[in-house]
Amino acid sequence: MKGTSDDYNRIHKVIQADKSLMSDGCKALILQDFAEKFNEYFDVMGLPRLELSQKNGVYTVQVTFEAERIKKFNVLK
Amino acid sequence: MKGTSDDYNRIHKVIQADKSLMSDGCKALILQDFAEKFNEYFDVMGLPRLELSQKNGVYTVQVTFEAERIKKFNVLK
Repeated sequence: MKGTSDDYNRIHKVIQADKSLMSDGCKALILQDFAEKFNEYFDVMGLPRLELSQKNGVYTVQVTFEAERIKKFNVLK
Repeated sequence: MKGTSDDYNRIHKVIQADKSLMSDGCKALILQDFAEKFNEYFDVMGLPRLELSQKNGVYTVQVTFEAERIKKFNVLK
């Protein structure tokens, strides 16, 4: 019985990874790069989070992060 | 009566701009820069949107955008 459950879990994991729009490795890589860019304007706390969904062939990407501070800068007028 | 309403609108606008965490000019500048970074990984459609809120001294930043395509890349294993 244990063997069947293990098989199920393994197959379930493979299917989930196959269905996901982006692998965890790619996501982590992107987020590290995004965090560097965000840090130019904010004092970012921790790593940003990324949510990716797809509808009618259009991806919606939502990146969220916390920051301690907005870095001071100004726009030339 | 019209004068009072104009004054009210002007003051309301000044107060809103004063209360906002970031000016529209700064927001537009940041978003343009973020969009360039996002374009390294996605085919971004339009400009990203930025929502900024503050609670207990911590800023929460949420950046959302639509993309036509996730650019192909792989992580070395």
